Amino acid sequence: MEHTIKAIDTELAGLGHDVSAMGDLAVAQVRASVDVFTAHDLTAAAKVVRGDDALDLQDAEIEKRAVRFIALRQPVADDLRRTIAAMKIAMQLERCGDLAKNIGKRVGRMTKPAAAAQADPIGDLGRLVTERLAAVVEAYRTDDAQGAYDVWLKDTDIDERHEVTLREIVSCMASDPESVGDCTHLLFIAKNLERIGDHATNIAELVHYQITGHELADRPKL
Amino acid sequence: MEHTIKAIDTELAGLGHDVSAMGDLAVAQVRASVDVFTAHDLTAAAKVVRGDDALDLQDAEIEKRAVRFIALRQPVADDLRRTIAAMKIAMQLERCGDLAKNIGKRVGRMTKPAAAAQADPIGDLGRLVTERLAAVVEAYRTDDAQGAYDVWLKDTDIDERHEVTLREIVSCMASDPESVGDCTHLLFIAKNLERIGDHATNIAELVHYQITGHELADRPKL
Repeated sequence: MEHTIKAIDTELAGLGHDVSAMGDLAVAQVRASVDVFTAHDLTAAAKVVRGDDALDLQDAEIEKRAVRFIALRQPVADDLRRTIAAMKIAMQLERCGDLAKNIGKRVGRMTKPAAAAQADPIGDLGRLVTERLAAVVEAYRTDDAQGAYDVWLKDTDIDERHEVTLREIVSCMASDPESVGDCTHLLFIAKNLERIGDHATNIAELVHYQITGHELADRPKL
Repeated sequence: MEHTIKAIDTELAGLGHDVSAMGDLAVAQVRASVDVFTAHDLTAAAKVVRGDDALDLQDAEIEKRAVRFIALRQPVADDLRRTIAAMKIAMQLERCGDLAKNIGKRVGRMTKPAAAAQADPIGDLGRLVTERLAAVVEAYRTDDAQGAYDVWLKDTDIDERHEVTLREIVSCMASDPESVGDCTHLLFIAKNLERIGDHATNIAELVHYQITGHELADRPKL
């Protein structure tokens, strides 16, 4: 029995370690996607696109590992909650990776670098979102309910900054019809960043729940 | 033992029933969101927005039920695979609901009904996506691996129709700067529909996997 309990702890720690490592990679991918956008670096953009495969693999691995763990060790209560959370957080990180990849693709399709009036607010939004995702990955790694709660609480300022960015892009489209194609990419790049922010908030809820057993009040809205 | 096996079967069937019912509601919400868009019906749009709460509740209930089932019955192999799939499908359906809700919100914010040149392709895309989601929910309900595979295979024609729709909206934005605000809503309505299509494809993979134990080759791209 003692032996089984120790095995469970070791395996659960291993699963948590995998999720943290996947989180670090997701943060790196999101950060890189923001950087390639602001630098309009097409070579680096292609690298971000290719880099997403690793996240897909890690997600699949974590799920397999979690399911095997449930089947063999039949964890209950806290341990089960942590196992399910690991799977769900991996899914959220995988989605962040998809969104970063899509940003990389869109940078590659733009005909020229974005003007400062649009590029600056998008860059700001991107750095804010990256910071939040990094904070929640850290909260997961260090089992920090308060850190997760802080990320969750600050969701609205991402939404506000996204709204400001959107208005800037739309007004540019209206004043310069030729820019509409590129600006459409900008709209979706901004939207992708906002959605990464939503995923960070979702992860914050999962982290908070797995530590405290209490759900945070409202689900973040789309 | 016989008694336990019977209880497991009953509970698993109950879980499947809940997921199917949630699927029906998600399909109804997506269909309604397309209808309120084509009819520019603001009252019905507000109803779609409110209707999403029910899906959020169902998702939470299914997850709770699945986790309780795992903890108490400790299912293995096939049963465990079905339980995990139920949770994951519910998450996908919940996202479809969010996207339908967002369409409802955007319809409410448009200053006037969309012109036929944009409304028609969006309506077509919407009906196609609704049909796919309904087909995959049916495949889940009837344990139909072939039906799930068919939905999975046809993912690309949603993408193609989305591209056509996007071009139509962007060219309208370029030719009529005053329409840019409303057209931005159209861009995101079309994008939401495409993403619902992606979720239908993801569900198709999950259904196929839970029945056959084999993964479909590629993950659908963002």
